[in-house]
Amino acid sequence: MSEENRSDILTVSEQQPKAEGKKLQFNLIHDYPQKNAELLSSQYGFNIFLAGLLLMFAWAIHAVGITDRDLLSYLITLMLIQMIWMLWYIFRSQSFRRSNIEKDTDAGARWLRCGITLFAVITLILDSFKIGYYIGYSECLSITEGIFPVTHTVHTLLQVYFLWFHAKDIIQSFKTLERFGLIHAVFTNLLLWANGILTESKHELNEHKERLITLGFSNITMDHHTPECNCTSSVCSIFSQGIYYLYPFTIEYHILASTMLYVLWKNIGRTVKHHQQQKIHFKFHGITIGTVLGLIVLTTTVAVLVVYLIQIGRSKSKSELALNMFYLYAITVLILMCTSAVIGLIIYRLENKSLDDSESPAKKLDSDLLVGSACGSWLISWGSILAIICAETHPEYTWYNLPYSILVIIEKYIQNLFIIECINRKEEEPTDERSERIFSVSTRSNLSLASSSYDVINDSVTICNKEFPYISNSEVPVAEDCAEEQRSQDNNNSIRLTPCKVSIHTTRPAKLNKKRRVLKNIAAFLFLCNISLWIPPAFGCRPQYDNGLEEIVFGFEPWITVVNLAMPFSIFYRMHSASSLFEVYCKA
Amino acid sequence: MSEENRSDILTVSEQQPKAEGKKLQFNLIHDYPQKNAELLSSQYGFNIFLAGLLLMFAWAIHAVGITDRDLLSYLITLMLIQMIWMLWYIFRSQSFRRSNIEKDTDAGARWLRCGITLFAVITLILDSFKIGYYIGYSECLSITEGIFPVTHTVHTLLQVYFLWFHAKDIIQSFKTLERFGLIHAVFTNLLLWANGILTESKHELNEHKERLITLGFSNITMDHHTPECNCTSSVCSIFSQGIYYLYPFTIEYHILASTMLYVLWKNIGRTVKHHQQQKIHFKFHGITIGTVLGLIVLTTTVAVLVVYLIQIGRSKSKSELALNMFYLYAITVLILMCTSAVIGLIIYRLENKSLDDSESPAKKLDSDLLVGSACGSWLISWGSILAIICAETHPEYTWYNLPYSILVIIEKYIQNLFIIECINRKEEEPTDERSERIFSVSTRSNLSLASSSYDVINDSVTICNKEFPYISNSEVPVAEDCAEEQRSQDNNNSIRLTPCKVSIHTTRPAKLNKKRRVLKNIAAFLFLCNISLWIPPAFGCRPQYDNGLEEIVFGFEPWITVVNLAMPFSIFYRMHSASSLFEVYCKA
Repeated sequence: MSEENRSDILTVSEQQPKAEGKKLQFNLIHDYPQKNAELLSSQYGFNIFLAGLLLMFAWAIHAVGITDRDLLSYLITLMLIQMIWMLWYIFRSQSFRRSNIEKDTDAGARWLRCGITLFAVITLILDSFKIGYYIGYSECLSITEGIFPVTHTVHTLLQVYFLWFHAKDIIQSFKTLERFGLIHAVFTNLLLWANGILTESKHELNEHKERLITLGFSNITMDHHTPECNCTSSVCSIFSQGIYYLYPFTIEYHILASTMLYVLWKNIGRTVKHHQQQKIHFKFHGITIGTVLGLIVLTTTVAVLVVYLIQIGRSKSKSELALNMFYLYAITVLILMCTSAVIGLIIYRLENKSLDDSESPAKKLDSDLLVGSACGSWLISWGSILAIICAETHPEYTWYNLPYSILVIIEKYIQNLFIIECINRKEEEPTDERSERIFSVSTRSNLSLASSSYDVINDSVTICNKEFPYISNSEVPVAEDCAEEQRSQDNNNSIRLTPCKVSIHTTRPAKLNKKRRVLKNIAAFLFLCNISLWIPPAFGCRPQYDNGLEEIVFGFEPWITVVNLAMPFSIFYRMHSASSLFEVYCKA
Repeated sequence: MSEENRSDILTVSEQQPKAEGKKLQFNLIHDYPQKNAELLSSQYGFNIFLAGLLLMFAWAIHAVGITDRDLLSYLITLMLIQMIWMLWYIFRSQSFRRSNIEKDTDAGARWLRCGITLFAVITLILDSFKIGYYIGYSECLSITEGIFPVTHTVHTLLQVYFLWFHAKDIIQSFKTLERFGLIHAVFTNLLLWANGILTESKHELNEHKERLITLGFSNITMDHHTPECNCTSSVCSIFSQGIYYLYPFTIEYHILASTMLYVLWKNIGRTVKHHQQQKIHFKFHGITIGTVLGLIVLTTTVAVLVVYLIQIGRSKSKSELALNMFYLYAITVLILMCTSAVIGLIIYRLENKSLDDSESPAKKLDSDLLVGSACGSWLISWGSILAIICAETHPEYTWYNLPYSILVIIEKYIQNLFIIECINRKEEEPTDERSERIFSVSTRSNLSLASSSYDVINDSVTICNKEFPYISNSEVPVAEDCAEEQRSQDNNNSIRLTPCKVSIHTTRPAKLNKKRRVLKNIAAFLFLCNISLWIPPAFGCRPQYDNGLEEIVFGFEPWITVVNLAMPFSIFYRMHSASSLFEVYCKA
């Protein structure tokens, strides 16, 4: 609530009252204080969200009189309202195009919009699968199950267009209606996200129950929603199978969309200090070690996942083997991740960059989401730890589960510190300390470096890199001598300094000193590791279900409930930290 | 994360590196960036909280191997750590007493500290009851059940002392350790709060089950934790009964303490703009109508509660009668509350005061808590609405339940707008528009008012009040003519203005113009209404359990779970809004 348009409030209070009646009408509609407009809309948002959540809850527990159709109708209505609002906004902003709309440089980064487009494409495939499935079973499915994917397709197309062109807008006029539209969009996406999670959880739970039945547990009731007629086409089973492999992407799409819309909502009426932010460029350069290690982890993960899914639930010994393999592999990866994040943190302390204290909703949301979603997996890990401590029997794999759970907690703790500090570090100024360093180096070794610093402008990247290790290695003495040398040789070197500065701007990627290169490698490695750790839980490898220990201690129902509530956040954490690490990589 | 000590960060970045090794050590300990110290400590807090929550959850569902003793030991450990930290802080701040500690004027208001002391006293009584209960059953209760209330007593005494003298501190030195201590205290109190809620919910649920058994439902299992030996003294039953009447106050005590500690934590390292805040004085004056109406509501509530508790669960017809009575009464009160809050909002629009845009953690927390805790009761209300829509049979009382549930949603929506706008309104400056108005009035009617404005200084309050209705009624023409009259008669009235201004400062309570008096009445009325609506759910009148309709639609277990999770927030909302309305009353 901090980003209030101060000038707007002031003009309201400075106006002198003219005619009481007219004034009242005027105030209630146009000059409603923006702090309250925020509250007014957020309370509306919470209410549609809570009502939707309860509908989902009621449907999930098979409440009397509440069907699939009710829930889908509610979601369709919300999507239609959002589409009408988006169309209104798009047309209105096109007609006002000449007036300069302010932009928030932190919001809606290009890579974020590319990411959301990718997920949206997969979502569209999912929708087409659903439509195909509906056509196959159209005799016995309700019409809403056909309308829903069609509406969702249009909704996705329109929303991606909207986010692509308007994610950076800072809305300054007619704010109240915009606030309502945006908060409606935020919570519509959150409900679609929750709906995706619910469907996915039900599916996972059923698969788990099927495995348990294979293993000999008989007192388990399945919860299938198979249609009561035969499919008219031959591809129905492909559709119904394929849908569940695409769900993880749809879930990410909706949560990403809602965070982008939320930032738009927070930005309404904000006054931005215009600090010229450098555009973040992705350059694949000097990060070979990190990338190679990361890719090794990624391929190993896929291999482990395939073996796990084949082995688990076949027999007791095969299941235990699969669990042991998964835990050992995960422990190794987590230790590597912890180590690299700690190295990153130590480098930060050595660099001593100042933190950016400007209040940006996009940055604040990023860090809140990281900590908030980490809580999901911390909850599961604490559950495992508690179960291991309290269990009466300890099969072998529990002794891998304990370090695994502890490492999950520690790794997220450290990684959050690493990411959030980098996000909040100040962008480097054009006249930063590096130019000073080069300056002082060139003053110290006049003969050897003066000429080579001229060369940098025209020469290739490799030559630059040969120069710079020297600079970063000799940093300490340089810094110590810097002050007095600068004073004594100031007149002497003023000419030499100019080309040196030019070299900084023309050959930017070449300036990677050792620390920055290590940071970039760490970010690349952690990025690939997080993608790797996203894959297993998203595609059905959930040892928290399969190891059985927690289920014995807490009971089947309570533990499944905890995992189903917390797991979506844990999965989202990996995706979100990967996208944040991409930013870290670009900024490092 | 916005209240970073900017100067601190800047000094860190401006330091030139001296010796790499020493610098590293120095940085890691002393100059750790405060943004990260906040993150470091909050992540620690989340982890001890989640571990505690899982322990409670495990205990509540009777998980294998987890006993009462484990949970209490965990809580005792947390309390001991907090006490050590508080002692360290108190002694340290006493030794630094001469250095000026900055204070946050928004935090830890006197009435808040008085409130927490009152609740703490009741908590101490509860603890002594628990000790008495333990002594009575000491043969068969574990020692932790005796140690817990003793530790809790010492903890309460020390914490109230700490909050009374340090709630306004803005800590500027050794911040990292302070952050850890405070966040530990915040989450310890939150866990004690959650523990209180859990015990209270279990008790309520058992009472509800007893009623159902009386009404003829036989397939219900009770969940009693009665000791397996006889009490050695005769007052054991008094203790065990009394404990449950005192629980609501303990719950409020812990949540209040944790919010105050959280504000302290957010304030660490903050730089406060020194706007001289007026001290809020409570004056009971000119609010007869609001108070009388509020007291009528309060007494009616107590009467309704007593009748409800006597009637409910006796027989089916008596239960329905009790439910009808409660709903009709609550609908009436809620309509009155909505109306008065709407009037309050209209007055705000007429007054056009500017909002305070300074970022104060205390104010931000206040509004977040109001909206957040309102979500609890919105969830229950949406559940009721959904149940009424979907139910197959509709007993008479459901037609009262529907408007009741809708009104609960609307009332909280409007009341939040009313409270939060007032909290965020700017304090009135000594030279505010009212003095201008009086000035312009005296210039317009020189003959009639010039003398009477002199009288104000010496005359009684009633004379002042007679003067001021005229001013507020004639506001519109005065404002229109103000500018030109001021210019033309500026020299003429400079002498007359002085006594007029004096009158404003000497007879402050007299200055209540009509609008402010209405606002004060509304605040007083809403304050008493919120206290009234806090009483029934806190002391066992929960129609959401008793009307049975939601239980039929959602099923017994799921609905009870929803109510048990959401009800504590709903109860807390009433208490918190009452305390906020007290502030509204003082500021209006």
